[in-house]
Amino acid sequence: MALGIGDDAALLSPNPNTQLVVATDTLVESVHFPAHASAEQIATRALCVNLSDMAAMGATPRWFTLALTLPTADAEWLLGFSRGLAEVANQFGIALIGGDTTSGPLTVSLTLLGEAAIGGALQRSGAGPGDGIYVTGTLGDGAAGLAVIDDLGKRGNERLLTRFYRPEPQVQAGKKLQGLASACIDISDGLVADLGHICKSSGVSASLWSERLPIDPELVQRFPEQALSWALSGGDDYQLCFTVAEADVGMIDKLVAQGALDATMIGQIQAVTDGGCQVLVDDKRVALKRGFDHFDR
Amino acid sequence: MALGIGDDAALLSPNPNTQLVVATDTLVESVHFPAHASAEQIATRALCVNLSDMAAMGATPRWFTLALTLPTADAEWLLGFSRGLAEVANQFGIALIGGDTTSGPLTVSLTLLGEAAIGGALQRSGAGPGDGIYVTGTLGDGAAGLAVIDDLGKRGNERLLTRFYRPEPQVQAGKKLQGLASACIDISDGLVADLGHICKSSGVSASLWSERLPIDPELVQRFPEQALSWALSGGDDYQLCFTVAEADVGMIDKLVAQGALDATMIGQIQAVTDGGCQVLVDDKRVALKRGFDHFDR
Repeated sequence: MALGIGDDAALLSPNPNTQLVVATDTLVESVHFPAHASAEQIATRALCVNLSDMAAMGATPRWFTLALTLPTADAEWLLGFSRGLAEVANQFGIALIGGDTTSGPLTVSLTLLGEAAIGGALQRSGAGPGDGIYVTGTLGDGAAGLAVIDDLGKRGNERLLTRFYRPEPQVQAGKKLQGLASACIDISDGLVADLGHICKSSGVSASLWSERLPIDPELVQRFPEQALSWALSGGDDYQLCFTVAEADVGMIDKLVAQGALDATMIGQIQAVTDGGCQVLVDDKRVALKRGFDHFDR
Repeated sequence: MALGIGDDAALLSPNPNTQLVVATDTLVESVHFPAHASAEQIATRALCVNLSDMAAMGATPRWFTLALTLPTADAEWLLGFSRGLAEVANQFGIALIGGDTTSGPLTVSLTLLGEAAIGGALQRSGAGPGDGIYVTGTLGDGAAGLAVIDDLGKRGNERLLTRFYRPEPQVQAGKKLQGLASACIDISDGLVADLGHICKSSGVSASLWSERLPIDPELVQRFPEQALSWALSGGDDYQLCFTVAEADVGMIDKLVAQGALDATMIGQIQAVTDGGCQVLVDDKRVALKRGFDHFDR
């Protein structure tokens, strides 16, 4: 960058022929992470969650600012926080360009800046009837991670905890979907709620097939009663949900077959009927809200 | 903008041939504003303080994101906050492009994005020996405003309260200083502390003349014992402090004479001597810290 931390503001030189992509996310102690979370866990979660917004746009993340509010200036805590931030920043090749550190209740707010080719950014509004609905990776792990956070003694929880504190922003997948996906969103509130945002923005409905949902077999085995509900509406997965026009489905299948994209078709976009924009699971209508755990009958 | 609030991120198209200028500021209740401040006052102060960083860079502010953490969703409070934000945003022609609203202790964090011609942004590092030192407007009003905040019954405090809750970001002045000022900073921590940042970044010392400091006569009359101390180190003025090479002093004087710039020469940059970067007031060294209220003798 032209000028970084230490002046009144940072000076950046975005690549020509790109649009700037900007997203802000805030994490508050005891709301978005438990009070016993480590500084490093808070940092990795804050940055990964925000990178996921860049992934959903198909953008290349480049820079971020940090607004950190802390009750006390604890050197050890700050060291852990910096380490977590640096690990994720290095992994994704992004630079901290400035911020503000203030005294108060623990709050972390990040603003990420990225770039997308002009006209290339993925949006929520392009889904059309007949489009295939896909998700990347597996679903339900984020909610399971949250459920086991207060249960640290149990063996085998490390993978789920990692999924909660260090979800894997699907930046590479998002970039591959430019020009292929008709709409895209990241799954933060839960599949049904976030797919519902695509439906509302695009003026369509969606039909999901529950037996196609990609759920880790270990998750089903460990939580047989909750796994499906978590996959549909648990949230915190930070995978991408995207739609693909019929003409482009073959290209997606090809990328998946090549191992270049980890994605599963889970349903189809439908025209809106009298009931307005809806998300159906196995032909039953479900509520478009976070924390959904039952069907409307 | 290309795409605003409502998708995973905002899409912006900065003007070609500009650099992007990015600044973040956070305000925490009971730290940066008293608990009895109105929603509108909090909003105007948050945005004006952040616009002041843009002014200090000589940048044209264009967009901002809002990270708002609130204990409860109070419709009346939000209405007042939105009104304050909209008033200042309209005045400066900037657009709210996104953000995040979360539940928790009251915290407002803004990230402003602006533009500056490539190579045209004002920085802290260009001051050289012999440069004149200037400030815009008057000094000490911000600190006086803070002092009278708990004293609302007194007549005649409105002007000072306004200076605290709605300081006037010197965006127009900053833009006029492009190509003229050798260094620039906005006065948030106090003149001595902020001029000290210029000195450290530029590797120089500074000599101020106390009788030249622009202090409102009413402030001197009302607070005869505090006025000078507040002007030197009270902070919260959000005026610009800038330096000008001898060759350009005539141009600044001309702008001031034309009424195009409200600025006063208050001292001169000097070469560093054995004592390192220093700020002298009437030839006495002063401490480079916020809340300064006495000379080192």
